[in-house]
Parts: sequence; structure tokens; C-alpha cells
Amino acid sequence: MDLVIGIDIGGTKTKIGLVDKEGQCIDYVYYRTREYPDLDEYLDKVTSTVDELKAKLPSSTNIIGCGIGAPNASSRQGAIVHAANLAWKGTVPIVEKLSTRLPVPMKIMNDAKAATLGEMHFGNAKGMKDFILITLGTGFGSGVVANGRLVEGFDGFAGELGHIDITPGDGRSTGLNVKGGLEAYVSATGLKRTILYMLCKHLDESRFRNIAYNDLHGEDITQAAEEGDVIALKAFDYTAKVFAQALANFTAFTQPEAFFLLGGLVNSGKFILDPLEKYFNEYLLEVYKGKVKILLSGLPPKTAAICGAASLIWDDHA
Amino acid sequence: MDLVIGIDIGGTKTKIGLVDKEGQCIDYVYYRTREYPDLDEYLDKVTSTVDELKAKLPSSTNIIGCGIGAPNASSRQGAIVHAANLAWKGTVPIVEKLSTRLPVPMKIMNDAKAATLGEMHFGNAKGMKDFILITLGTGFGSGVVANGRLVEGFDGFAGELGHIDITPGDGRSTGLNVKGGLEAYVSATGLKRTILYMLCKHLDESRFRNIAYNDLHGEDITQAAEEGDVIALKAFDYTAKVFAQALANFTAFTQPEAFFLLGGLVNSGKFILDPLEKYFNEYLLEVYKGKVKILLSGLPPKTAAICGAASLIWDDHA
Repeated sequence: MDLVIGIDIGGTKTKIGLVDKEGQCIDYVYYRTREYPDLDEYLDKVTSTVDELKAKLPSSTNIIGCGIGAPNASSRQGAIVHAANLAWKGTVPIVEKLSTRLPVPMKIMNDAKAATLGEMHFGNAKGMKDFILITLGTGFGSGVVANGRLVEGFDGFAGELGHIDITPGDGRSTGLNVKGGLEAYVSATGLKRTILYMLCKHLDESRFRNIAYNDLHGEDITQAAEEGDVIALKAFDYTAKVFAQALANFTAFTQPEAFFLLGGLVNSGKFILDPLEKYFNEYLLEVYKGKVKILLSGLPPKTAAICGAASLIWDDHA
Repeated sequence: MDLVIGIDIGGTKTKIGLVDKEGQCIDYVYYRTREYPDLDEYLDKVTSTVDELKAKLPSSTNIIGCGIGAPNASSRQGAIVHAANLAWKGTVPIVEKLSTRLPVPMKIMNDAKAATLGEMHFGNAKGMKDFILITLGTGFGSGVVANGRLVEGFDGFAGELGHIDITPGDGRSTGLNVKGGLEAYVSATGLKRTILYMLCKHLDESRFRNIAYNDLHGEDITQAAEEGDVIALKAFDYTAKVFAQALANFTAFTQPEAFFLLGGLVNSGKFILDPLEKYFNEYLLEVYKGKVKILLSGLPPKTAAICGAASLIWDDHA
């Protein structure tokens, strides 16, 4: 059996698994990325983890390559470049360094773009030529597929939709100091910031008047909404409205057949998805109405990032 | 010699020409579209015009096809659909009806997208895999090329960048009643509206305090700017600023190597282009700085639309 190693390097966790041609992750392991601030020690850990996974396989197994997803990864350079949430600074030539330890065909890509390829090969975007995948975690990640191909742009930094300015001249700053950047509104972090905004704007009682910003978690906001907390409900509505307007605008760009959503914020379910659907249909230009779907990712939640990473290699065998 | 018939159907003029493999328009004719409100009479006129052009050619000439550019054209339907500026209402099946008169391979496409293909084959985008073309006339037209291919979207309506909402919730309405749509700011019409805005906002003396909106023309605004009219200069600066912010946002989407500009507003030269370049470099995300060019279209101004239309056919012979 042919298998691909899929590695997702996240700010919190590193996930390593083995993925078959159908996108099934047959085995995987997680560990904390921050336990290995030294790059060489980290890569040794990656290598030993892969060896452990391989040791469990029958000898007929053939590892045909290794795909890596990571924040701020440049596929052209084979490196992670200035990733704010990782301990290794500057340009980290992961592919070069890991290839000496794991001598198989190896590729790296921005994690959201890897997930986009994963959605295309193994998820709900199978057979679609034009779609956009959006990951809503701590930040806002995205990948654009047009004419059946991932849009990478002139030097690999296309699809950075989270940094598109949605409130010209006078909006919240993102981590990249983009004023009005979408990510500052539509992400788990954006939702928390919107709780502050709603507490400031309205006088409604809310459990959040007793919780400091740094103690606030996305799940608390969903929980509060379930209990009818007005501030939580207003925060979801506002987030959905901003998001819907952005999706309506994105539609005019590449006219995707569908947007696929993935990541923590999606777990808030109807509180985000119902108003999103409503506002999206309001904002959409007449010519697009009824033609653009908002769907959930079809990748298995726990191993989505591993499948995405592995799809970089399966993409070459498609 | 192989030649392609290029037809540009505009609200004001219809332009018909013959274009060779190098994109040279060897002969062309203009006439007023509105003189033929009856579709069959219009198509008879198109046919007789083509016959006249052909009659001048040596008998060795081979017409290999006919490309048509038109507002609101759907390439998939082969039709013009609800074009606000044309006399023929509803869905106009141009390709079907004209094919019986001109039996050659025939294609139709939105005029701005046809110009985008023209720029790729015959203009300054030769060899580029990722670029965006923008036509700034009465309206705002655009075409996106990613991975070397025109992005048409799920059913042919991608690249409608003029309808992207740039001032959420509180902007000018476009012809499609999109509040805050880019076209309402960045186009010849948008510039005229901005003159009103500046006359309202500021108290400076200006020649435009004596000219009614309907008597205002783009060339007057350029002329006034040349003479130092403060309102004209402020209007150009504002237009450039809004445009620059939009281009910076578009860059995060497909990371084009260049934006190409075409159309009436470009004739205002330095008054629009200098502040555009300045603001664009201010707004561009760090990761893109120095990598994205703003360039003028390389298509010959008078026959750009004809070359664009003809490139629909040459595209198949590339």
C-alpha cells in the first residue's frame, strides 16, 4: 500500500499521520510544538515519530512522500518565513533540513492552502473547479481554487483573504497591523474582540461583564449564546454580518461554486451559520443569488490538517 | 493569411475589425449601435460590414473565426443577458443568431474579460501567469488571470470587481444598486460624482461650481486639474486613494504580478496615476511590497476592444 506522511505544524500542536490514496488517515500522533524550541531537536522528534508510525506498518507499505502544512509557509522556498506563532525565527528551511532525515519527495505549503487541496481531493469539494476554503481558528486562513487549480499567485502569497481591509480607514488592527482586516472580525479572536465591542456599545447584562478578555474562550461564547446571553447573540450576529459581506464580495472575484468552512468558530454551529446564511443571501448580487453555497468542510475534524498536508503529495499522483 | 473577426458591441459604438495572429488589427470600422434597435437589422449590419471588410482582402485570406466582446455577455450561454446600456432586452442569443449569417467558429465574452485575454496574448501581459486587467470607462470592468488562465468562475460571472463593496453599509450606489460598490467611485462616472462630493465638502472656488453634473465630462476634469483647480485635484486624489486601497485588497486575493489599466480615466495621466502609485505602495501588505506593478495596457487604444474580442478565437489557436 502507498502512503503519504502528513505533517501539520501548528503554533500549539504538531500533528503527524499517514494518509492513504482515499484520504483516510490510518494512524496519527499529536505533540506540543513548543516543547521543541530548538529546530534540530524538533526535526529529530518529527523523524522519530514518523519512524514509530512506520514501525507499526506491514513491510509491503511504501511511503511515497511527505507533505507539510505550516503557518507562513512558502511553497516556492520550501520554508516557513517569519511565523509569528512559532519559536523558530526568520526563514526556516524545513524541506531542506527534514529531507536529510526523511529522504522522500517533500513539499510544504501554507496550512490553509494545504487544507484547500485536501478539501479538493478528499473532502466535499471533490469535482468542483471553483471554490474557496476558509479556516476560522485563532486567525483566518484561506485558499482559492479557480479553474480546478489552487491560486498561488505571482510568488506564492495569494489567498490571504484575512488581511483584506473591510472597513477602509477606520477598523480594528490585525496581527499584521492591517487596519480593518477581516481576520480582526471573523475568527475566534475576532469574536472575542466583538464581545468587548458589544459590551461597550450596549448596556445589556451579560456574563461577560465579569470575565476579563484574556480569560475568554470561544466555547464560553457559544455556551452563553445557548443560554440566551444577549451580548453573545449580538456578537455572533455582528460576526456573521461582517463575514457575509466579505463572502459576497469574494464571490464577485472568482465566483466560487461554494465556500467551505473549517475550524473552531464553525463549532459554534447555528449561532454563526444561521445569520451567516441569512446575511449572505441579502448581500449577494442578483446575478449570483442561489448559485453560491456555504458548506462545511468534509475533512474529518481531527485529522483535517494532516489530510491537507498529505494532499500536497497526493496532488502529484492524481 | 489567417484572420479573426473581432466585434466589440458597446452601448455607444460597435467596432468591427480583422485581427491577425500577432494581434494587429489590419482594418476596422465603427458605427453607432443605437442606430439599430432591432436586433435582426443590427445583425444584418454586422454581416454586411464584415463582408465589406473581407471584400478588400486578397482571396488567399482565411477567416478562422469571430470573437465578440459585449457588456453582460455570458460565454457559456453565448448571449448578452440584461445589458442595461443596450436596446435589446432580456437574453439576446447573439452567437446563435449571428452564426447563421457568419458561419465560422464564434465566441462571445464580457468585454472586459475579452480585453484581458487580449492583454495576455497581444499586450503587455505576454508571459505573465497572474495578472488583473481593469477597464476604467463609464463603468469599471475587470478580468482576473490566475495560473495562466482567465478566471470565469462557476458560471461565467467571476471578475466583477467593480461591484465589490468598499465602504460597508454606507456608500454610493452603483447602477446595480450595490451600496459602496467600487464602480461608483473608480470610473469616469465615479470621478464626476466625486467632483460633487468635493464641491459639497470644501469651499474652494472651482470652475465646477458653474457646471451642472450632466454637463460634466472626464476631459474637463483633467483640463481643470492641469490649470490647478483645487476641486479637480482633490477629486483625482480621492479617486486614486479609493482605487489604491481596492488594488491592495485585490492583491491579497490572487497576488497578481501586475495590474493593467485601460480606458478613459487612464487618459487623465499623472493626475490619477501618480497618487495611485503613492497610495498603493502605502496600502500594500509588507509581504507584497515591491512585487506588484501597476502598468498601462499594451493594446492599441483605438482597437483594444477589437483585439480583445478577436483573442477569444486566437486563444484556441495559441
